[in-house]
Amino acid sequence: MKKKIVAIQGEHGAYSEAAAFEHLGKKIKTLPCKTFEQVFDSVVDGKSTYGLLPIENSLTGSIHQNFDLLQRFQLTIISEYHLRIQHCLLGLPDSQLEFIQRVYSHPVALAQCDSSLDELGVERVAEYDTAGSAKLIREKNDPHAAAIASKHTSEVYGLKVLKENLEDNSENYTRFLVLSKEAKVVNDPEKVNQDYKTSIVFSLDNKPGILFKALSVFALRDIDLTKIESRPLVGKPMEYIFYIDFVGHVEAQICKRALRHMEEIAPFIRVIGSYERHQIIETKPKGNN
Amino acid sequence: MKKKIVAIQGEHGAYSEAAAFEHLGKKIKTLPCKTFEQVFDSVVDGKSTYGLLPIENSLTGSIHQNFDLLQRFQLTIISEYHLRIQHCLLGLPDSQLEFIQRVYSHPVALAQCDSSLDELGVERVAEYDTAGSAKLIREKNDPHAAAIASKHTSEVYGLKVLKENLEDNSENYTRFLVLSKEAKVVNDPEKVNQDYKTSIVFSLDNKPGILFKALSVFALRDIDLTKIESRPLVGKPMEYIFYIDFVGHVEAQICKRALRHMEEIAPFIRVIGSYERHQIIETKPKGNN
Repeated sequence: MKKKIVAIQGEHGAYSEAAAFEHLGKKIKTLPCKTFEQVFDSVVDGKSTYGLLPIENSLTGSIHQNFDLLQRFQLTIISEYHLRIQHCLLGLPDSQLEFIQRVYSHPVALAQCDSSLDELGVERVAEYDTAGSAKLIREKNDPHAAAIASKHTSEVYGLKVLKENLEDNSENYTRFLVLSKEAKVVNDPEKVNQDYKTSIVFSLDNKPGILFKALSVFALRDIDLTKIESRPLVGKPMEYIFYIDFVGHVEAQICKRALRHMEEIAPFIRVIGSYERHQIIETKPKGNN
Repeated sequence: MKKKIVAIQGEHGAYSEAAAFEHLGKKIKTLPCKTFEQVFDSVVDGKSTYGLLPIENSLTGSIHQNFDLLQRFQLTIISEYHLRIQHCLLGLPDSQLEFIQRVYSHPVALAQCDSSLDELGVERVAEYDTAGSAKLIREKNDPHAAAIASKHTSEVYGLKVLKENLEDNSENYTRFLVLSKEAKVVNDPEKVNQDYKTSIVFSLDNKPGILFKALSVFALRDIDLTKIESRPLVGKPMEYIFYIDFVGHVEAQICKRALRHMEEIAPFIRVIGSYERHQIIETKPKGNN
C-alpha cells in the first residue's frame, strides 16, 4: 500500500511532524510546507491526502490566522489530536549536560523554558524554529551547543536528549486538526453522536442579545459546547465572526435541527467538520509547579 | 511633576513601548521588564504606576497566559489601546534599501513580512525580539544588514527607515490594556455607560446550556458583548473559564444587576475593570491585499 502523504507546516522534526506520527502512525509520509496556507494548497491540489494544522495552544491561545484559512478553504476536519509539548535539550551524541554553554531555539520555546535555562546558566540564541535549531547543532558539530526541540526531533537529527521536560509549565498542549478534501462517512451518526464534535464558523450582526439567540439553538436541544471564540472583523466594526465546537455529529438529527435553526439567525454559517473527540489525558505535573 | 512610570514587557523600542507613548503620551517613563509577570509585579510593588499588557492580536489571537495573569493578580484595567502593527525595515543611517542582504527580527515579524522579504530577495535571520534586532544592527554597524521593527524603534536606536508597511496583512492590530492598582473613579457611571467596556472572567460547570444561562444575564438587559472566549482548564476537564467584555460601566445600575444575576450562575467571577472603549479606526489597506 502506498504511504499516505500528510502536509505539515515546518521542517522534518517539527512538533507538527511529531503530532502527525503520534496521531496517524508511522506509516505516513510527511510533506514539510513553509506556510500554513501551503498546507491547505497541498491538500486542495492533491499533493497530500491530509493536512495537519495546529489550531490552539493551551498557553499561547488560538491561532487566528488558521481559523481564517479554515474559513477560506473548503476543506473538512476529519480528526483532532492534542499533543503535549515537551521541550527537550538536544546535543551532539558525545556531548553532556555540563558541557552546554549556548542554547538555540525559537524564542517562544526559549521563553517557555526560562527557569530551566536560568538554572543551567546558559546563553540563549534565537532561531527560526525548533527543528531548525536542532539541524544547526548537527551542522555546527559543537559539543557546547544545544537546541530546544522535541524528542522526535532528536531522532530525526541523530541528537542526544540531554534533559527532558525543560518547560516551566507542564500544561502545554497544542491542538491539531487533520484536514481532508472529503468528510469521513460515519455509518450510524445517531449512535456515535456523543463521541463526536462538530466545528462551525458563523457570523452575527452586532445587535445586543444576538449571541444569546444563536446559542439558544444548542441550549434548547441540550447540545453541549466545548469551545466558543469571537473576533471582530477588522475594518467591519459591526460584524463578528464566531467559532464554536459542539458535541455531536453533523449528520445526527438533533444537530441537523440545531444548524437549520442557526441558519435563521446567522447571515453566514459553515460546518468545518465532524470528527471524533480526543480528550487530553491528565499527566503528572512537573515537580516545581 | 514627576513622570509616571509604565512597566512594559520587552526592551526600549519594543512595540509595547510604542503603544505606551502613543496611548499615554510622551511624558511617561517606561520600565522594561523581561516577562509579563514582572510587569504585574512591578505595579503591585509600586515600582511603576501602570503596567501595559498586550492581550490579543488580530492575526495571532489572544495571549492566554496574560489572561491567566489578569486572573491571578488583583490589578484593574483602566484603559485599552489598539496599536496598528506596522513593520518597518530599519538600517544604518547611511544604508540604502538596495544594500540590504540580511534581515534580522523575531520569527513572527519575519513571517508576517514574508512576501516583502521574498521581493527583496534577502536572507532572514531570527532574533529574540524586534527591538533587540534593531539594537544588533546598531552594534554590527553593517550597511548590508537591516532589522524589522517599528518606526518608534528607529528613533530609539537612531536607525533609518528603509521601507515602511512591510507586513503582508495590514489588518494587524494588537490590543493593549493599562493595568493599575486602583480603578479610575467615574463621576456619573449612568451617563458614560455606553462609552465604557467592562472585562470579567468567570468559571462555569460543564453542563449543557450553562453558557446560555450565563449569557442571559446580559441578553435580558440588552447589554452588548464585544468579546467572548472560553478555555477548558487543563487537568480539570469538567471546568471552563470564560472571558467576556461587555459594553457598560460596572458602577452603572444595569451592569450591577447583570453581575449580581451572574453570581447566581457562576461559581467564580471577577471584574477585571471598567474602562473607556477604544475603537480601531479603519486604515487604507495595502495595495496587494
